[in-house]
Amino acid sequence: MKGRVTIPTDESFAEGTKKIAALWGADAVRDCDGTKLPANAGEIAGKVYETYFVTRGDVAWAKAHPEELQHFFLMSERKTAQAETLALFPAEGCFSEQVKPDYSADALRYWQVIDRTTGREHTAWQADEVKGCVVIRNAVPWHEYTVSFLAHNVWDSTQMYNYITNGWNTEKHSPYDPRYPLTARHIRDVLEGWLKTHPDVTVVRFTTFLYHFFLVFNEEGKEKIVDWFGYNASVSPRALDDFAKEYGYALTAEDFVDEGYYNSPHRVPRQRFRDYMDFIMRYVADTVKELISLVHAYGKEAMMFLGDSWIGTEPYGKYFADIGLDAVVGSVGGGVTVRMLSDMGGVKYVEGRMLPYFFPDTFFAGNEHNAVAELNKNWMTARRAMMRAPLERIGFGGYLSLAAAFPEFVKRAGEVCEEFRRIYVGVKGKQPFCAVKVAVLNCWGKLRSWQCFMTAHELWYQQAYSYQGILEALSGLPAEVSFIDFDDVKAGALDGFDAVLNAGDAYTAWSGGEMWLDEEVQEKVRAFVARGGGFVGVGEPTACAKQGRFFQLADVLGVDEEKGLSLNTDKYNIAAEEGHFIFEDTPAPDFGEDKKNVYALKGAKVLKIAFSDRFTRSVNVGEVKAAANNYGNGRSFYITGLPYSFANARLLYRALLWVSGKEDFVRKNFSTNVAVDCHYYAASGEYALVNNTFEEQKTTFYGAAGAAREVTLSPMQIMWLRADGSEEACGN
Amino acid sequence: MKGRVTIPTDESFAEGTKKIAALWGADAVRDCDGTKLPANAGEIAGKVYETYFVTRGDVAWAKAHPEELQHFFLMSERKTAQAETLALFPAEGCFSEQVKPDYSADALRYWQVIDRTTGREHTAWQADEVKGCVVIRNAVPWHEYTVSFLAHNVWDSTQMYNYITNGWNTEKHSPYDPRYPLTARHIRDVLEGWLKTHPDVTVVRFTTFLYHFFLVFNEEGKEKIVDWFGYNASVSPRALDDFAKEYGYALTAEDFVDEGYYNSPHRVPRQRFRDYMDFIMRYVADTVKELISLVHAYGKEAMMFLGDSWIGTEPYGKYFADIGLDAVVGSVGGGVTVRMLSDMGGVKYVEGRMLPYFFPDTFFAGNEHNAVAELNKNWMTARRAMMRAPLERIGFGGYLSLAAAFPEFVKRAGEVCEEFRRIYVGVKGKQPFCAVKVAVLNCWGKLRSWQCFMTAHELWYQQAYSYQGILEALSGLPAEVSFIDFDDVKAGALDGFDAVLNAGDAYTAWSGGEMWLDEEVQEKVRAFVARGGGFVGVGEPTACAKQGRFFQLADVLGVDEEKGLSLNTDKYNIAAEEGHFIFEDTPAPDFGEDKKNVYALKGAKVLKIAFSDRFTRSVNVGEVKAAANNYGNGRSFYITGLPYSFANARLLYRALLWVSGKEDFVRKNFSTNVAVDCHYYAASGEYALVNNTFEEQKTTFYGAAGAAREVTLSPMQIMWLRADGSEEACGN
Repeated sequence: MKGRVTIPTDESFAEGTKKIAALWGADAVRDCDGTKLPANAGEIAGKVYETYFVTRGDVAWAKAHPEELQHFFLMSERKTAQAETLALFPAEGCFSEQVKPDYSADALRYWQVIDRTTGREHTAWQADEVKGCVVIRNAVPWHEYTVSFLAHNVWDSTQMYNYITNGWNTEKHSPYDPRYPLTARHIRDVLEGWLKTHPDVTVVRFTTFLYHFFLVFNEEGKEKIVDWFGYNASVSPRALDDFAKEYGYALTAEDFVDEGYYNSPHRVPRQRFRDYMDFIMRYVADTVKELISLVHAYGKEAMMFLGDSWIGTEPYGKYFADIGLDAVVGSVGGGVTVRMLSDMGGVKYVEGRMLPYFFPDTFFAGNEHNAVAELNKNWMTARRAMMRAPLERIGFGGYLSLAAAFPEFVKRAGEVCEEFRRIYVGVKGKQPFCAVKVAVLNCWGKLRSWQCFMTAHELWYQQAYSYQGILEALSGLPAEVSFIDFDDVKAGALDGFDAVLNAGDAYTAWSGGEMWLDEEVQEKVRAFVARGGGFVGVGEPTACAKQGRFFQLADVLGVDEEKGLSLNTDKYNIAAEEGHFIFEDTPAPDFGEDKKNVYALKGAKVLKIAFSDRFTRSVNVGEVKAAANNYGNGRSFYITGLPYSFANARLLYRALLWVSGKEDFVRKNFSTNVAVDCHYYAASGEYALVNNTFEEQKTTFYGAAGAAREVTLSPMQIMWLRADGSEEACGN
Repeated sequence: MKGRVTIPTDESFAEGTKKIAALWGADAVRDCDGTKLPANAGEIAGKVYETYFVTRGDVAWAKAHPEELQHFFLMSERKTAQAETLALFPAEGCFSEQVKPDYSADALRYWQVIDRTTGREHTAWQADEVKGCVVIRNAVPWHEYTVSFLAHNVWDSTQMYNYITNGWNTEKHSPYDPRYPLTARHIRDVLEGWLKTHPDVTVVRFTTFLYHFFLVFNEEGKEKIVDWFGYNASVSPRALDDFAKEYGYALTAEDFVDEGYYNSPHRVPRQRFRDYMDFIMRYVADTVKELISLVHAYGKEAMMFLGDSWIGTEPYGKYFADIGLDAVVGSVGGGVTVRMLSDMGGVKYVEGRMLPYFFPDTFFAGNEHNAVAELNKNWMTARRAMMRAPLERIGFGGYLSLAAAFPEFVKRAGEVCEEFRRIYVGVKGKQPFCAVKVAVLNCWGKLRSWQCFMTAHELWYQQAYSYQGILEALSGLPAEVSFIDFDDVKAGALDGFDAVLNAGDAYTAWSGGEMWLDEEVQEKVRAFVARGGGFVGVGEPTACAKQGRFFQLADVLGVDEEKGLSLNTDKYNIAAEEGHFIFEDTPAPDFGEDKKNVYALKGAKVLKIAFSDRFTRSVNVGEVKAAANNYGNGRSFYITGLPYSFANARLLYRALLWVSGKEDFVRKNFSTNVAVDCHYYAASGEYALVNNTFEEQKTTFYGAAGAAREVTLSPMQIMWLRADGSEEACGN
């Protein structure tokens, strides 16, 4: 098999690239940020990608049109007034090479001083550009004040990151804003000129579209704020004016600064911010669509890098499918990022950029073993999700010459490419066996499919990993996964599902916060479960304190959380039930950073419990870690945390089966060993048994008919078995 | 030395009592609930206490006047409507021998049905006494409903508890309510008759006054709700009518039921509940004052048991000093309960009832060693607080004959009595050295002095021990401790203190919840610290989410808590500062159930930090466990939890010194060994070094002048040293 693989190349490594392309079956080459394609790239592979920057890279343009540079809103540090006058220094604490407050009259209209002690806007102030400060008059002593200000983002955040992190020293790119008329025409003209002069390129790889996600550095040149979903760098006085005209109301700085939370994806989104997102998504879609038409006019494909300047083109957004993109490429960390890519619609193909990146930080002498290990780890976690929904292509980035110097790596990467192609053939278009249909319910719904609990792409956060693990588990489970929001619930969406899952910390967009106070939401979810639906809650599901409940659907869940206010009511969490269906394969789960102080209501079954090792009351009352509940004809399962592990993935699978009343599905297309996944593709009559470890694994495999068979898999092996009993030898 | 000790006696043990009285130097005898005084009690001791029940015990009266029995408000279980009609059974889940819903027309006026999904009152319902239910019409399907109802408390909660727990089988006492006219006269007449017929009694020990704290049992006869501060059992239709007349507005069931929280002391109190408390305190004070006048008219003293039916006579309440009580007796568990008793004003003397209680559960054959151990443990924790503020008397309860059978116990109890008298002589009226004046700030202030974080008297709660430890520590520290509320702060109370302490879980009365949104409170506290005051915060101090802060005074504290909403802002908690003054004696403190996700603001010093053992970002960001901050001329110290231990008590002492800028006080009147307390009484020129352990302890002792001296203390020893260098050998 050949194809479906993209490799990097550069002008100094054309011949080497040909060899690797042959070894790996690569049919596409690409350049990277920092490298140049060889002149004869088209001879190396059928597809040639070249990176393209829409709104940065033209340093001369940026210098000539400083008034058309991009903006963001920032909040100054909080300062306490000690007298009636107080000076705030907007850019204090920010990286001066990136952040340049915009003191123009046009921008100043949108600056805003707020008394953070009261939350009221304070109007008595003046900006002094020379001193770089805002002077507040009539301040109330001992109140905190901030100024929210528009600043020019004079250094593209990704270039800045690479410059600082990887020691680059190219000219600094200042991103310019096509919202302004000169730049609007300029980006179109430049693209057309570029298309004319790049006949060999078959795929324009838009490494940036218009606006970067929100990424600001601090005065030490370190990351200060990072928000992969942040729309803040798409703002400008002109955008604000346009918005006000269209929507009939004006946004203020506070709509962006949001008390300093900057509309983090963890915030329950407010309507004004949603309006702005829609406004930007439409604008970006319109603008990009025009650019893509140009690309098509020159007979090339347009590919978006889902990574840096992707704001406004979220692939699950309403306007995404209309813009005419041919492809999306995104980096792949694990199963979640695979599914984020492979589940999107609206493009012809999706490519995953695998790890490791061919950079000197990995590919240095003596480190080949680690490079191979990183490849294996990345591949093994990613392919778990591909067994459910494969990408159309995979690829690599960086300097190919570095990787080519490591023969073991070259060999192993070739095997990975081959295995990927086999998976593609085995899985693509062949609906894998699916035991349950589950809806993940949060404030963002479909728009943030597979992106729940993320702050920055793939970064680990202590506060999120216990929830993010749910998605990593789901990415490879025999479950059909949809993402819905509270409006969907009100519109009756639950009818189409076996189970609904709600997870996250209280008052975040993921658990839903105040959305749970909507009576209609409560009615619909209760009715769904009572009619026989399933509910899975993790952490602080349905949490929003009101009327004596912290978990609004405590009656459904069978548990609530003690926030100290109801200590006067006795809890009787004494013992846990042994041997429940859900924990049969995984008696000792990992609760991660689990929630404390959860207690069971009367009637609920406590499945896991923890006891304080401190002195306790005469009856040792425990904390509930997992519980099951019956509600009408339906069922609910609660657990305090669910970080990703093989055992927890299995636990979640069994929980989904149990709440859906589908316990009898458990011994179908099933592997008893939690480290081995089993998938069944009815369309081809094939089973795939996947060893997700670097060790040999034995398992009992149950087919669709439920018959058992002992199987041994070599390390990392995918064993393809046919329903007729024949077996394809396929290993690592 | 003789006196200051009360022992129990009963009619079958008069002679034995005399012997013990002589051995222990007891000058008072008492009966107990369940025993009778000997006929000649006055010959045994100068003081004779007899228990007296004001509102229970007269079974015939209760039976004859069922309409004058006491009430409480209860909330039914929450039920979800599945159709437009829903039946609620008020008493479901309650102990039927205690709870009897009052279906009289007079009571039904105050019943209330609430749609808990919306929080709105629902008026379409009817009560059916025969079926014991309330039928709701026009219910909204899938909404939860409750009915709040008035019930007669037909079995006194304490008697019920003893009946069930200790197997009593006396006639059941139903408490009657003096708010009703017949009972009002009856309790006065009965007391007068009793006083006439009990000439030997010198002290009327009011084991109950009018209303019991809120204690309800469930359908299995187990504790359902317990609230030592609950005013709920003082309510009646008549009280509610009287209240409405006086205050011009009517209370509703919801003012008592409070979403099911029943105005737990952990709730931030609402004004309507405060009004009711004041209303009851005045009524109880007026009523009790009249009874006490009668007692005095018969030449006897009146003593209140601070334990069961004490509602309305909180010793730190506004009207307490006016009622004319001579004495209060309360049970002593540790230092906190000692100080709760010894710090109160308004009475001539206060007595502590020590443990163990002379009951068969401790005093059975073969258990003498444990009985002595319990005595020693109780005494050693209690005396630590007495070194700061001694009680006037101590005493015991139960069956003296049981204790008398254990010679080792008799001997040791005699020593304890003797040591108590020595402490009294050494400490009473001799202001001990005090390094700092600290105000404990919460919603209850002075009213709940030494009662913070309590739910039920002295009971351990996992959710509270990390805070309750602060008070146990303070009870024996060289600090002057006051309790203030937010109104006090606004009135300028902080001016009189070196430091203010705020502790507790977010949104509880102890940390203060929404009180922190009051601008004036923020201004006053910030100004206090900026002028040089100290702030100590534990757990979630000043917490109430608003305007981007979870801790409203994060600027003062130097820390805030990540609630998941600001993950997009980088935290740089990398390392902790070593060797700070505060932790010099206690490098490894106990954080108890400490709060997670606390991070330091720029400028704060991280003193203790914890790192997740999970995979983390390239820079391993930690959670702050303790931090110090400078704010203007003042200082702040934060710690995530502070359960009681010798080490944590020392830590708190050093923290108070540090935030107050009094580090140079640390080597004055000081013992380096954290297990040994040092007190200095300038009035007598005496030091007391107290070994708080059962082992020998060595310590370096610094006197008032700062000179060091090595000292060895035997187990439990109190060493009295004179400033002139002489030493009193005193120990066990």
